[in-house]
Amino acid sequence: MCWAHSPPALFIADGDTVITETIDANGFDKDGIARCSGPNPMNGPIFVEGAEPGDALMAEIIRMTPIRATGWTRQVLAANVVEPERVRDLPKRERTDWIIDIKASTVRLKEPVAGLEHLVLPLDPMIGCFGVAPSLGQASSTATSAENGGNMDYRGFRPGTKVYLPVAVPGALFFLGDCHAIQGDGEIVGTGVETAMEVEVRLSLRKGQKPNWPRGEDAASIFTVGNARPLEQALQHATTEMFDWLMDAYGLSAVAASHLLGQVVRYEIGNVFDPAYTIVCKIEKKWLPKI
Amino acid sequence: MCWAHSPPALFIADGDTVITETIDANGFDKDGIARCSGPNPMNGPIFVEGAEPGDALMAEIIRMTPIRATGWTRQVLAANVVEPERVRDLPKRERTDWIIDIKASTVRLKEPVAGLEHLVLPLDPMIGCFGVAPSLGQASSTATSAENGGNMDYRGFRPGTKVYLPVAVPGALFFLGDCHAIQGDGEIVGTGVETAMEVEVRLSLRKGQKPNWPRGEDAASIFTVGNARPLEQALQHATTEMFDWLMDAYGLSAVAASHLLGQVVRYEIGNVFDPAYTIVCKIEKKWLPKI
Amino acid sequence: MCWAHSPPALFIADGDTVITETIDANGFDKDGIARCSGPNPMNGPIFVEGAEPGDALMAEIIRMTPIRATGWTRQVLAANVVEPERVRDLPKRERTDWIIDIKASTVRLKEPVAGLEHLVLPLDPMIGCFGVAPSLGQASSTATSAENGGNMDYRGFRPGTKVYLPVAVPGALFFLGDCHAIQGDGEIVGTGVETAMEVEVRLSLRKGQKPNWPRGEDAASIFTVGNARPLEQALQHATTEMFDWLMDAYGLSAVAASHLLGQVVRYEIGNVFDPAYTIVCKIEKKWLPKI
Amino acid sequence: MCWAHSPPALFIADGDTVITETIDANGFDKDGIARCSGPNPMNGPIFVEGAEPGDALMAEIIRMTPIRATGWTRQVLAANVVEPERVRDLPKRERTDWIIDIKASTVRLKEPVAGLEHLVLPLDPMIGCFGVAPSLGQASSTATSAENGGNMDYRGFRPGTKVYLPVAVPGALFFLGDCHAIQGDGEIVGTGVETAMEVEVRLSLRKGQKPNWPRGEDAASIFTVGNARPLEQALQHATTEMFDWLMDAYGLSAVAASHLLGQVVRYEIGNVFDPAYTIVCKIEKKWLPKI
Repeated sequence: MCWAHSPPALFIADGDTVITETIDANGFDKDGIARCSGPNPMNGPIFVEGAEPGDALMAEIIRMTPIRATGWTRQVLAANVVEPERVRDLPKRERTDWIIDIKASTVRLKEPVAGLEHLVLPLDPMIGCFGVAPSLGQASSTATSAENGGNMDYRGFRPGTKVYLPVAVPGALFFLGDCHAIQGDGEIVGTGVETAMEVEVRLSLRKGQKPNWPRGEDAASIFTVGNARPLEQALQHATTEMFDWLMDAYGLSAVAASHLLGQVVRYEIGNVFDPAYTIVCKIEKKWLPKI
Repeated sequence: MCWAHSPPALFIADGDTVITETIDANGFDKDGIARCSGPNPMNGPIFVEGAEPGDALMAEIIRMTPIRATGWTRQVLAANVVEPERVRDLPKRERTDWIIDIKASTVRLKEPVAGLEHLVLPLDPMIGCFGVAPSLGQASSTATSAENGGNMDYRGFRPGTKVYLPVAVPGALFFLGDCHAIQGDGEIVGTGVETAMEVEVRLSLRKGQKPNWPRGEDAASIFTVGNARPLEQALQHATTEMFDWLMDAYGLSAVAASHLLGQVVRYEIGNVFDPAYTIVCKIEKKWLPKI
Repeated sequence: MCWAHSPPALFIADGDTVITETIDANGFDKDGIARCSGPNPMNGPIFVEGAEPGDALMAEIIRMTPIRATGWTRQVLAANVVEPERVRDLPKRERTDWIIDIKASTVRLKEPVAGLEHLVLPLDPMIGCFGVAPSLGQASSTATSAENGGNMDYRGFRPGTKVYLPVAVPGALFFLGDCHAIQGDGEIVGTGVETAMEVEVRLSLRKGQKPNWPRGEDAASIFTVGNARPLEQALQHATTEMFDWLMDAYGLSAVAASHLLGQVVRYEIGNVFDPAYTIVCKIEKKWLPKI
Repeated sequence: MCWAHSPPALFIADGDTVITETIDANGFDKDGIARCSGPNPMNGPIFVEGAEPGDALMAEIIRMTPIRATGWTRQVLAANVVEPERVRDLPKRERTDWIIDIKASTVRLKEPVAGLEHLVLPLDPMIGCFGVAPSLGQASSTATSAENGGNMDYRGFRPGTKVYLPVAVPGALFFLGDCHAIQGDGEIVGTGVETAMEVEVRLSLRKGQKPNWPRGEDAASIFTVGNARPLEQALQHATTEMFDWLMDAYGLSAVAASHLLGQVVRYEIGNVFDPAYTIVCKIEKKWLPKI
């Protein structure tokens, strides 16, 4: 963790676009050189001029380009995602290398693994960890997440997605890092395919529109994010935030919002590995009232 | 609950197809006549000749046709899916009627609700509750679920899906009911659109192939089902069952199965309302080793 | 599990005292002879004349006398009570024998264990599993517990304690078994010192006084019992039941009951091992309003 | 929260005793004057000369003397400790004043409450929040707790108790505050009787003896503390820490430590209200092997 309490690394204006090169979750850069001790060293913080507590910071993920031909994962399921008495059967958690073929836009194991010889996965870049400074002078580990974002490890944080973060300090102090070439739901081996990327992100203010928890949208859907343990609580935060969004921005009553959520809501699991788990509550835009 | 400890309602042979008319979760039939007190009265049990403990019963959901033009839902989010201090803000949980238009294949609110005047949902039938008799002479409420299935309220239990259930008693004693015209993830208002349906299901044995937890497949994916509280435990059961499936049937090592799950697994939430929650662990067939 | 759906083994009148010999959790009797397959075979059911749904059945535990000079335990912590990544370090869960010295009223390991050579524990008998038939025709495993009692494994269920159980079926159908010579909080090795006992219990009706969850009292305290997963939910049930008790029987307002609970409540953990965990909510009688 | 990232307020030597006046959880001092905005303003940090990462800091709570004749509580159960559907029935959470009679050593409600007219509680002072600086440059809210201590709200942190904290930064940076005149288990109204106290504490180093989680002892028992959500995880941390303590310091094998824990362990609930819950795992000293 490099960023906490650092002075801002960059000052930008509302609406500026930033292009930055991330290093991987262990602190290795595009050339495989150790630049920082892990876990999850971040780029930033970025001070956005005019950002004040009470605002939302909109982060548009415009582009993510891998800048290294290799990534790595842990190679065994995390102990907390299998039945407790079965943990004894798990091998130790070593590290495995993967090949990222940027031209072909694919990801595959570096060394052959029996049964997976033909496994070629699509490159599907996502930002594992990003957010703004928390409230009250807190400085959280970039291993965890909370109202301000952080290590959410949700594969929906990919190019084309906009995220609305609650600004708690002047300048917002945006940070990002921990990019993955691909990752399944839950980050259940404790990693995605960890690598270095060039990330292009536009940061804009929505004055006075601070959400309680991160909100987001892509072309098809709007979504909210709850970060907490256990999963029930993450789901409660995400659902309550969406409930409020439907009532406040779309003018629905509690009953109408419940009808809509009850029959069309989708949940996705960001991670069940980090100190705070992440659940996403999602509604397709086609079901929303016109506003 | 009508079915427990009843003598079998029907005896069939391995591979037979059954067509049955379900009543709704409150016990009302296709004509709106109360036939049974709820919750979740079931059709069955069906005794499958030759079924023995240690077998899997494969239930293929072939067809689900609504046989009533109305359904109903609860109209407010369940208290356990919102932040605890926000429960005070929820209205009381009344009942709302919906129109099921079988020709148009749509579902909509019967009375207009502000902001949802134009909400017309697709008919997307699913079986809320089905399974086989549990082990040890237990008789569970059809409000809950366990290794033997039960009230899982997962919207993936729709026509085209095959489910493999663990046979624990001679004849398996299959039951089903609680059909929904549509339902969001989590059944977070405590219901889908509850109605009566004609269901066509084929029941076949897979001798000696008893899973620990329900397994299933549709055209695109294989999946496993964990039923428990809290969500973490449901996820552990589903993940462990898939882990075992990948190792036993597809010949993967623990490490290879972890690699595959880690980067391509998808989780879906059946319900977070019933006494036991339901989480589904899913892998697209295109990623599986050939066997 | 021997008792489910058995016809009553005994019919008694309201207020009768029963003396019965239990067998251990694996079904072995006082002479070490296998009498029944485990887990947790029960004595009963006992039909109490006049018991009707809506009543409370008061079970007074009058006496518990070990009738075997040996007991046994599992010898390693259960996997779910240690940090998940540490489960790998646990040895396999074998069985260990203990000596129960009835004259000396002590319990000690049969074979010497390094560091525990001088460990002599007091005999502190408790009933691991007891209750009444559940509602709705359910038949639960005696491995678990619910509103009707069951496998609660709470060391406070000892001689001198009265328990009030919710009658759900005519005759109540009381059962008991699974006696322990001693047990720590949580039953964290999965057992107490399992043995056979002679138990004397008086069963009386409190007409129309059905609680939602088991209530109890001993000389010093009143208490309520919640049985559920996770621990939070067990605690919610126990706390809500005590809250209701203070308001209904002691005439306190919600605020007054909160004041009292907030400053004097004690929680105890019955078990964190069984399918449903058990938490006890307790208040010393000296703090209660006079009624 | 006043203390985070402040320069040390005091430098002391290993073994020095400190006497300090705390303010209440809302920042009001002994004279009822607002000195700091809440929640949970702390005294400190105190830099202990010679403290290095890898050490344990032993904090002996020598004396706690109320310095204000009034305290306050919230007056309604927290929403998360009652059954979710019952939260609707709870009144709003207002504040209530209490009288602290230092001479009589009692605590009672300031205004009469029906049914509690005669409730006079013993003064039983405890420190709600104390600890050392966390690792990795984190700065946590004093509303929560973790490996380094923090807002544990355990009533066992009273005069006569010694606590061993894991030093993560040079000087340890000890802090304390949030004193309660009395508090039930779980802090289930969200407060104890919040007041200002004079606290006398001795701080000493145990070089190289850093625990993973706080350890403690009083005259009768040793104990370990787990701080996390949900309760299961707090219990896992506390149990694992005690398991390690028994093996490392008392020379027990995993099996011997399990035997001892299984039959004599006691669990206590610190709080089920704060962001991280607190569970204490306790063993009476009389059961420990001699070392």
